[in-house]
Amino acid sequence: MALDAVLARIDDNLPEALDRLMDLLRIPSISTDPAFRADCARAADWLVAELQDLGFTASARPTPGHPMVVGHGGDGGPHLLFYGHYDVQPVDPLALWDRDPFDPVVQETAKGRVIRARGASDDKGQLMTFLEACRAWKAVNGTLPCRLTIFLEGEEESGSASMIGFLQDNAPELRADLALICDTGLFQGTDPAIVTMLRGLLGEELTIRAATRDLHSGMYGGLAANPIRVLTRVLAGLHDATGRVQVPGFYDGVTELPDAIRAQWQALAFDHARFLGDVGLSVPAGEVDRTPLEMIWSRPTAEVNGIWGGYTGDGFKTVLPGCAHAKVSFRLVGAQDPFAIRAQFRDWVTAQLPADVSVAFKGHGNSPASVMSVDNPAFAAARAALTDEWGRAAAFVGAGGSIPVAGYFKTHLGMDAMLIGFGRDDDQIHSPNEKYDLESFHKGIRSWARVLARLQ
Amino acid sequence: MALDAVLARIDDNLPEALDRLMDLLRIPSISTDPAFRADCARAADWLVAELQDLGFTASARPTPGHPMVVGHGGDGGPHLLFYGHYDVQPVDPLALWDRDPFDPVVQETAKGRVIRARGASDDKGQLMTFLEACRAWKAVNGTLPCRLTIFLEGEEESGSASMIGFLQDNAPELRADLALICDTGLFQGTDPAIVTMLRGLLGEELTIRAATRDLHSGMYGGLAANPIRVLTRVLAGLHDATGRVQVPGFYDGVTELPDAIRAQWQALAFDHARFLGDVGLSVPAGEVDRTPLEMIWSRPTAEVNGIWGGYTGDGFKTVLPGCAHAKVSFRLVGAQDPFAIRAQFRDWVTAQLPADVSVAFKGHGNSPASVMSVDNPAFAAARAALTDEWGRAAAFVGAGGSIPVAGYFKTHLGMDAMLIGFGRDDDQIHSPNEKYDLESFHKGIRSWARVLARLQ
Repeated sequence: MALDAVLARIDDNLPEALDRLMDLLRIPSISTDPAFRADCARAADWLVAELQDLGFTASARPTPGHPMVVGHGGDGGPHLLFYGHYDVQPVDPLALWDRDPFDPVVQETAKGRVIRARGASDDKGQLMTFLEACRAWKAVNGTLPCRLTIFLEGEEESGSASMIGFLQDNAPELRADLALICDTGLFQGTDPAIVTMLRGLLGEELTIRAATRDLHSGMYGGLAANPIRVLTRVLAGLHDATGRVQVPGFYDGVTELPDAIRAQWQALAFDHARFLGDVGLSVPAGEVDRTPLEMIWSRPTAEVNGIWGGYTGDGFKTVLPGCAHAKVSFRLVGAQDPFAIRAQFRDWVTAQLPADVSVAFKGHGNSPASVMSVDNPAFAAARAALTDEWGRAAAFVGAGGSIPVAGYFKTHLGMDAMLIGFGRDDDQIHSPNEKYDLESFHKGIRSWARVLARLQ
Repeated sequence: MALDAVLARIDDNLPEALDRLMDLLRIPSISTDPAFRADCARAADWLVAELQDLGFTASARPTPGHPMVVGHGGDGGPHLLFYGHYDVQPVDPLALWDRDPFDPVVQETAKGRVIRARGASDDKGQLMTFLEACRAWKAVNGTLPCRLTIFLEGEEESGSASMIGFLQDNAPELRADLALICDTGLFQGTDPAIVTMLRGLLGEELTIRAATRDLHSGMYGGLAANPIRVLTRVLAGLHDATGRVQVPGFYDGVTELPDAIRAQWQALAFDHARFLGDVGLSVPAGEVDRTPLEMIWSRPTAEVNGIWGGYTGDGFKTVLPGCAHAKVSFRLVGAQDPFAIRAQFRDWVTAQLPADVSVAFKGHGNSPASVMSVDNPAFAAARAALTDEWGRAAAFVGAGGSIPVAGYFKTHLGMDAMLIGFGRDDDQIHSPNEKYDLESFHKGIRSWARVLARLQ
């Protein structure tokens, strides 16, 4: 059977596949920082060359931000679109990395071999599992398994500002029978999983201003408004004592979990003590009346992701700053409307400001939640393929992270998405010392070969 | 009369005096930042050479931090100790400076000529007023006016960590009949003033820790404790709605203003609308039942001087940080005990932490408030000298800023201090574009000549 030959080819050529991933990991494609603009373009070009080498007609397509990589290849069977992203998160605090984030290496650890680098798991290692599956398939069979469109983004970590426009402008070219997205993980590090419920995301940055300049806290302290104090008071009021978000209208569109899904999630036996224990925590800190899985998969949140103001260097400076800043994000579920919540949040903050204090807002991306329709037989087929590869039943799960593109595919292309990924909870994505297990990479490639065999 | 000749000499030699100040301002003696350690030593050496040139026996005396400059000269009359500090505040945000902070220049402005540089007002320009008065006096009379000890510190802007030990180790050498301190300002920019009431200062830095590493807010958001949220909640609770500090025991030792002083302050006709208007504010933001002068002179405060945590760069990063930080300072009055308040503050913060969250504290200096005894006839003499120079009645005032050394002189040397300075509220000390009016410098030198003539 051809699949067995493809799987054998994957096993035999793993070192070469790893070398290719290492090349991609060496490119510091940090999309949110303008200083790395040329590196993002370089990563896109690298992927175009890779796709062309696999026989795809591919190009890097300009956008107002970083380029989109689009490739077309194969024919027959269903038309599948594969999505991944080549941009990565910033690396600060750099001092907490054990080595250069862009000098990838394979390391032996107590839990097995890992690929260590920024982007190893999120998302370069994951997107390469699909390309390597295509490479092995083509090497064995001489062709790709079916008609494939490869669509790789360079702005996923910075709000996907160009995505909607690009989808609208190129809808006929990009519309396929089904999208495959590789940017998620195994459940509890062991069970293959297909994500069928994704939270949305709304990002807001606020700047609170008081005096027109920094003041000496001895001269003005006690008399002049302190924007840090105003900011802490506003942010402290984001949640009540039960963990409920206090922005009016925030829960509009939030629905309770259907009983069937609740039962399935209970059967997953999520070990929240281990999940939290891995990062030095022990007690679920969210809404008091919700289960841990609800907290991360099906309940909306508000979090402060960054705060700064005044003197933050060594030593002490008795300054009353002129302004203070915070970055706040909301994870959205159900039918919550990011635009409505943005407006309500801004009104809620503004209404709390004392005299002489003003606020300015900056939006950082917004996307609604998405819930996949698992009636599509491709879901059952993929579930079986994953179960074959991993020797454990594949699960339909939720995901706390936001993968807005799944929603955009539905809204703008009318296309369903199936999210399959091989990351682990301890991959330290978005953190120092990010890694991707070599097993995730290897069995990830094999998993896609099996999924393609069942879908072709 | 010799005083007239000294004043004439000061007027004639103002350009040379200004050149000497410019030399000192070119040395970036930022004491709080270890990167400028050698510059602090260079500033101390520069002052030693200056004092030796004036006939003082002077040296830079090592401490665990930056050197103390000590000089002795003159004889007869009372023994006066003059104190100033040669270190300066950091210059960030550098982008808000119109020019290099350490490339001093005299600029014409709508309000007259100003000396523009970091430290021009706080405190290099001020300390040089006294040295230049000594220089003119010696040029005219061949001797200094009386026995003088010059004592210049290099750690005033970073908590004076070496001061108490140095005073204790050198008490017999430093104890004088009276200390003169030049680190304060004119009242409302026009009236000469002697500060008789100084607030104390307690500095605390706190680090709130939750997870052992930064987390992805999609994966963990809603389930894991967020240290920024904990920090904002703690800081938001520092004050109640009336502006009262909520740390238990904080007001122990705070007394009401004596009626005589209250009446004197009312007579000063403080224009708080102008004071606030100069920095873009209009409404007193302190305790609701206190007058503006009480807020800055005689009431204790708690302020957040710095806050940071999570992602603070361009763009957005959906991180739940492992820790968050703040720098908090308290201005103290009356008999408030900084050590007791430090302990109470730490207990109060610690008691509010939820599960899995810890806090670490770092102290940044502490000093009680001081209230001078104005019965000493030197106060009346200096008041008359200042009234002569400025043509307006000199006032006894309070000061919101902390000059801990005045309290240390009292506690460790049994020595009273008289605080006279010529800064203006718009000098932008501790802020970008700091300046010192050329008039402050010129009339400041003349003022000290007049004060010395009356005290000798």
